[in-house]
Amino acid sequence: MDLVGIEDVEAAAHRIAGLVVRTPLLSARWAREGSPLELKPESLQPTGAFKLRGASNAVARLDAEARARGVVTHSSGNHAQALAWAARAVGVRASIVMPEGASPTKIEATRALGAEVVLVPAAERESAADQIAARRGAVVVSPYDHRDVIAGQGTVGLEIVADRPDADTVLVPASGGGLVAGVAVALKARRPQARVIAVEPELAGDLAESMQRGERVRWSEEQTSRTIADGLRVTQVGALPWEHIRVLVDEVMTVSEEEIRAAMRLLAHGSRLVVEPSGAVAVAAYLSCTPARRLGRTVAVVSGGNVEPALLREVLGADLR
Amino acid sequence: MDLVGIEDVEAAAHRIAGLVVRTPLLSARWAREGSPLELKPESLQPTGAFKLRGASNAVARLDAEARARGVVTHSSGNHAQALAWAARAVGVRASIVMPEGASPTKIEATRALGAEVVLVPAAERESAADQIAARRGAVVVSPYDHRDVIAGQGTVGLEIVADRPDADTVLVPASGGGLVAGVAVALKARRPQARVIAVEPELAGDLAESMQRGERVRWSEEQTSRTIADGLRVTQVGALPWEHIRVLVDEVMTVSEEEIRAAMRLLAHGSRLVVEPSGAVAVAAYLSCTPARRLGRTVAVVSGGNVEPALLREVLGADLR
Repeated sequence: MDLVGIEDVEAAAHRIAGLVVRTPLLSARWAREGSPLELKPESLQPTGAFKLRGASNAVARLDAEARARGVVTHSSGNHAQALAWAARAVGVRASIVMPEGASPTKIEATRALGAEVVLVPAAERESAADQIAARRGAVVVSPYDHRDVIAGQGTVGLEIVADRPDADTVLVPASGGGLVAGVAVALKARRPQARVIAVEPELAGDLAESMQRGERVRWSEEQTSRTIADGLRVTQVGALPWEHIRVLVDEVMTVSEEEIRAAMRLLAHGSRLVVEPSGAVAVAAYLSCTPARRLGRTVAVVSGGNVEPALLREVLGADLR
Repeated sequence: MDLVGIEDVEAAAHRIAGLVVRTPLLSARWAREGSPLELKPESLQPTGAFKLRGASNAVARLDAEARARGVVTHSSGNHAQALAWAARAVGVRASIVMPEGASPTKIEATRALGAEVVLVPAAERESAADQIAARRGAVVVSPYDHRDVIAGQGTVGLEIVADRPDADTVLVPASGGGLVAGVAVALKARRPQARVIAVEPELAGDLAESMQRGERVRWSEEQTSRTIADGLRVTQVGALPWEHIRVLVDEVMTVSEEEIRAAMRLLAHGSRLVVEPSGAVAVAAYLSCTPARRLGRTVAVVSGGNVEPALLREVLGADLR
């Protein structure tokens, strides 16, 4: 299979400049001796997550004819708003298929970005998106199983290398795998000495198992839905991301639910960032390493910040107990 | 009086590049029609506030002899840690005079940055700092009444104009006045059409009164200590900042305590930023404007994020009631 290359990531960077925030690296004062840590706060993107990069790149790549037909996807999470935002930015129609049980807040936020929201029973999400695509000729923009999306997410890695060319370790949240695949493409081309570590919750550890077995495994929704990290509940890494991850990612780490909550608290109080559980797993992995494991100069991707207010309060309140 | 000039701010920008975070402008999705809003998140500086800019510039300006003697200041707030950080970055000794009642967290944080913390009764702060200066020849770096500090804080304004050359309104928190003075120097040189508005709490509204009267007035500590915005309790704007503010700042707005809390909540949930009360006043001012007051393209400086965990929980919990 033809992998996404560094030239694709560079082209994506040019395409999406001005459409996304060029996030700075933030040095973490609470880092351990010997393992300085910097954060890449993608939670600061206008839609609150890195997903805007891939969606913006995919939309920017459409030709005039495709733009006229619009884009479609199924998502109840950060990709929905990212695609809606990216489409609106260039005047393209976006249809987002969401499960009927999706949170009213998220439905409203997606509509507020000008997208058409199509509510269907959860099991019909994929087929509904395909039908819209077939009927209108709309282009399906998958949240991760798409070359342009992987290339767009890879710009996170390009910026990390630009700002920290001496990075030793890069920790990246993983679920569908688009972000870690793209970041690994950039790092292995520009800073091959750096270890790229994918991080997922223990309770949604399908990628760790896939890496051990050397093949893509699928977990059940009952299993992955146990984690608080609602952005990382995809049951199986995408086929295209997997082809990249198996050859470019050095290691997969898993973190516990308590480690995720502790990382959220530390990011709020120690680095002044509001982060969603999925966005905190890379920092949780850093914290879970013993001092004996010398990560060296480390960058942790803080992938998103869209946490429900009630959950944020609960997590921040927990250090009182 | 010879005011700080744009060339001083530009020189400061060169001096502190690499020592402070080049913060991006973050577009606020929750802005009103007709008044698009961007945030300048200085809460993301490593010490959690813009103060690092002025302190870094002041320390970088010292000659070798002065560096050998060290720096001293009195502060229990964001300037203490900023000066400690800036001094450590270039291997200069820092002595910070703090009142005996200062929070153990802040004392510990300042010590952790390698500074010597000198605890004295609150009334003796200034004289204690002067004594250290006299005894050791250490250089006093005032938190705001200092040309190099004003020039350093002005780099916030320089970056705003670089990223948003068409800004119509810039909202800036004010207390000692170093930040708003520096930002006004940059804006009036580079984008004179933009209105620079200083913002302070109603309960510490000495600057608004000073502007009305045309002279610097002093409020009592009993008065200014009523506001939740602990970074803005200075009882009188500094003499040097005042000379800038009276000629360069277009207007002073005041905000209520409830408006400050509401802005903190909105910044956490809507823009994923943990902000201290003082850091939220510019956004509070934006929110307090009726739609009839068209601010145009607006930038609000979010000056700091060092909020006590218990206060953050209290403020975030308040929207449940």
